[in-house]
This record gives sequence, structure tokens and C-alpha cells, in this order.
Amino acid sequence: MPRPLILVTNDDGMFAPGIKALVEVCKELGEVVVVAPNSPQSGQGHAITITEPLRLHKVDVFEGIEAYECSGTPVDCVKLAKNVLFKDRQIDICVSGINHGSNASINIIYSGTMSAAMEASLEGIDSIGFSLLDFSFEADFKPAQHYAKLLIKSVLENKLQKCKLLSVNIPKLPLEEIKGFKVCKQGNGTWVEDFKVSTDPRGEKYYWLSGEFIPNEGETNTDLSALKDGYISIVPSWHDLTKVDALESLKYLENGG
Amino acid sequence: MPRPLILVTNDDGMFAPGIKALVEVCKELGEVVVVAPNSPQSGQGHAITITEPLRLHKVDVFEGIEAYECSGTPVDCVKLAKNVLFKDRQIDICVSGINHGSNASINIIYSGTMSAAMEASLEGIDSIGFSLLDFSFEADFKPAQHYAKLLIKSVLENKLQKCKLLSVNIPKLPLEEIKGFKVCKQGNGTWVEDFKVSTDPRGEKYYWLSGEFIPNEGETNTDLSALKDGYISIVPSWHDLTKVDALESLKYLENGG
Repeated sequence: MPRPLILVTNDDGMFAPGIKALVEVCKELGEVVVVAPNSPQSGQGHAITITEPLRLHKVDVFEGIEAYECSGTPVDCVKLAKNVLFKDRQIDICVSGINHGSNASINIIYSGTMSAAMEASLEGIDSIGFSLLDFSFEADFKPAQHYAKLLIKSVLENKLQKCKLLSVNIPKLPLEEIKGFKVCKQGNGTWVEDFKVSTDPRGEKYYWLSGEFIPNEGETNTDLSALKDGYISIVPSWHDLTKVDALESLKYLENGG
Repeated sequence: MPRPLILVTNDDGMFAPGIKALVEVCKELGEVVVVAPNSPQSGQGHAITITEPLRLHKVDVFEGIEAYECSGTPVDCVKLAKNVLFKDRQIDICVSGINHGSNASINIIYSGTMSAAMEASLEGIDSIGFSLLDFSFEADFKPAQHYAKLLIKSVLENKLQKCKLLSVNIPKLPLEEIKGFKVCKQGNGTWVEDFKVSTDPRGEKYYWLSGEFIPNEGETNTDLSALKDGYISIVPSWHDLTKVDALESLKYLENGG
């Protein structure tokens, strides 16, 4: 049996410790190809590049691993991998990350890591986005690697059936304190934002986004509650934004509002 | 009673005919403030700017209307409007568009127009994203304006209850051929992509995204089917990507996969 083809990508760029950690895990599970942005792309959401050309360059970053840097967004990376590099060969799984910082709750919407994984899922590829709740460059990825390996192996063996995309967040805890996986819903919370206002050397005013994420209190069985309880959250996710329970209540609009 | 405060934004930038069409409609319904990107931002999805400062400049583009151009993404525009310009005043509704081109089906994911509206909905503001199925700069926005006015007026009067975000797509048809509004789900389809490969003047290879959207056949009560039948589609939308019906089937992962 041929080894499965594993596409690794991220949004922090080729030199982030998180992608190195993920490549190390995947090397033990299959044939790895990396396609990642040539610059950090945090917060890029599902952005794609349509008004300018994209570049794709082979690089030698991970020992013995085929790797390409791409001039575009995380989603562009996946599109190029699927439609240029592997036009004629099936990608068995796409893994994205390991992101430095949480993508739980509404943060999935802003996340380049998760958007790359979602793009692969739209192409019919089983996909997992991994995020570690630790922004530090010196973050310890070992516990995340242990569980990422378990999960990727399981998905390669069992395939994802009712859902092509898993959003995985890993608490910042030592291995022995992590209680395992919890399959759960996306939690709710709010960003309380506060733009830092300042003046540049030319005397022009500027604004710099800053803020604090406030989780909703009292929710259970969500990624936020699972992480708080010491679990790794797995949220089965997809691209359908319909708020189904609101369909009926809006029918009055069909009569002209 | 004070006139409602209407925030207008888009992803095509301040000089797109679509935003002018939307401003004309909103002027008749309330006090209008425009905050839009200073360059076209199609396909920016839910991108935000976190690694560099943002600029916000007052501009005189629409007669008698307060307007600001922003150096960032559509989502940045909404964040700045909410947290800088209107920190102490309630925005009654945010309308985004009118986009040049469809945001039906999975295109909502890539859309800067819809991401701007979603950002406002996350801030608790009733929001509507409008898209016209016509890419032309000379597109006729009159039928879209007629229906946008009906809908914005209704939402201002009734408020959105179970859902803060409406994704509205308008077929490219003369007014008399549009059959009205249809409240429906997000449809399914696939982008069949084909990167144009070429070589730049320096001899370097580049890739340019191109492709065709193929709607799934046989779906009913979706935005795609409504548009095909001559209706304006209204999809109640939100930020929760959980694929709820897959939760149970993935429980086995909690036992280590």
C-alpha cells in the first residue's frame, strides 16, 4: 500500500515552530508535502488572491521533505497544492498549523489556519486545523504533537464521514494534565476591542487593533468549556453559514417585508 | 424620533458603482455614514489587519454624506466604525455592498462584502450584505436598489430577531422580471479551478487564479435555486461553523480515535 499523501500548511509561515512540529508528526504517518505562505498570514481569514499573480517556490526547510513557499494567503496555498502540484494525484489529508494561539469560538472566522483547512475540505479532502493556546515562540509543542499524531492517524484510517473538517484546539498544559479529546460545538464569545491610537513620525494619526476575547459564561459542551476543563476540543466544522432556526421567522420578508 | 444611523461599507472600494447605489437608497432611510476600503478588497474574506497600523481618512465622495476611507480590509472598516467613530453611539444597521458579483453558496466564505456584514453582526448590529449577479461596471443597480430599500426599511422597523445577518443576492434581471424575495438556505456548489500559468518579463513563472463555479444539481430552497427562478435570495446567516449533525458520529475520537 502506498503511504498516504499528507499536505501540511499553516498561516504563520514556513519558519514558525508550529509547522515544524506538525511536519515532524506527519513524517511518521505518510508522505509529506508542505505548501505554506512565504510570510506570516495570521488573521487572513478566507482571503484569496485574485487581482495579482501567485508565486510558488521550492524550498529546502524541512530535512528530506518536499516544501514550497507561496506568495499568497493560506487558502491560496491549498488551491495551488490541489490544482497545480497535485492535479493528478489525490491528497489524503490536509493538516494546517499548528497555529500559535487559539482558534476556538468565533476566532475560527478570522483564522488563516482554519481557512486553509476549510478550503481543503471544500475540495473534498479530509482536513484538520490545529491550534495551541500559546502564542510564545518558545511554546512547548510536544503535548500537541502527541495528540495530533493520534488524531491524524485515526482520520487516515477511518476517514471523515459526515464532515470533512475538524477544528482542533489544544490547551497550554503539560502532557500528563491533558484529559484527552472532547468532541463539541463552537462556543460563543465577544472581542472587546480597543484600537490603540497614535501618531506616526510624519504626524499622521494611526489605529492599531487590540482587544480582549471574553468567552460567554455558562455554556457547556463547547470548545471553550472543553479547553477550560483541560481537554483538547474537536469541533466538526463546515462552510454552511445558514442559521437554519431563523428561516421560518423571516418568511414574512417574502411578502415584501 | 432621531433618524436611524446606517453604516455603509463594501469590499470593492469607495469608487465602485455598487456602494454609490447603496448610499442613494440609505439616504432616504436614515443618517448615513460610509466607511469603506481605500482599494478594492474582493476575495478578502474575513481578513483583519493585526501586524500593521490602520489609517482612516475623511473623504468627500458622496454629496452631503460623511464618508471615510480605510487602509485595511472590509472587516477592519467595520471594527473602526464601531470602536473608533461610533464608540459612544449605536449603529442601527450595517449594510454592505452592493457587491459586483454573486456571493451565493460557498462564495459567502470568500466574500469581503459578507465578512464586513458578519463582523457587524458579531458586534450585535443588524446587518445585510447585498450582491448583484452582474460583474459589469455598467451594471444596472436600479432593480437592486428597489428591493434593497424595501428590505432595509423592513429590518429597521422590525429589527432582526433570531439572526443578525442576512446574505442577499439579486439576480441580473429587469425590475419587472424579479419575482420578489425568497428566504432560503445556502446552496452547494464547487469551484472548478484552473490556474493560468505564465512567465513574467523576468522569466519567472507565475500562477493566476481562475475558475468556474458549478452549482450542485437538484437542490431546492437554496439561494442558488431561488436566483435561478428569478427571486432575490435572503439567507439568514451567522458565524457558527459547527456541523451539528456530525457531533455524534465523531464521539469515538474521545476514546483516542
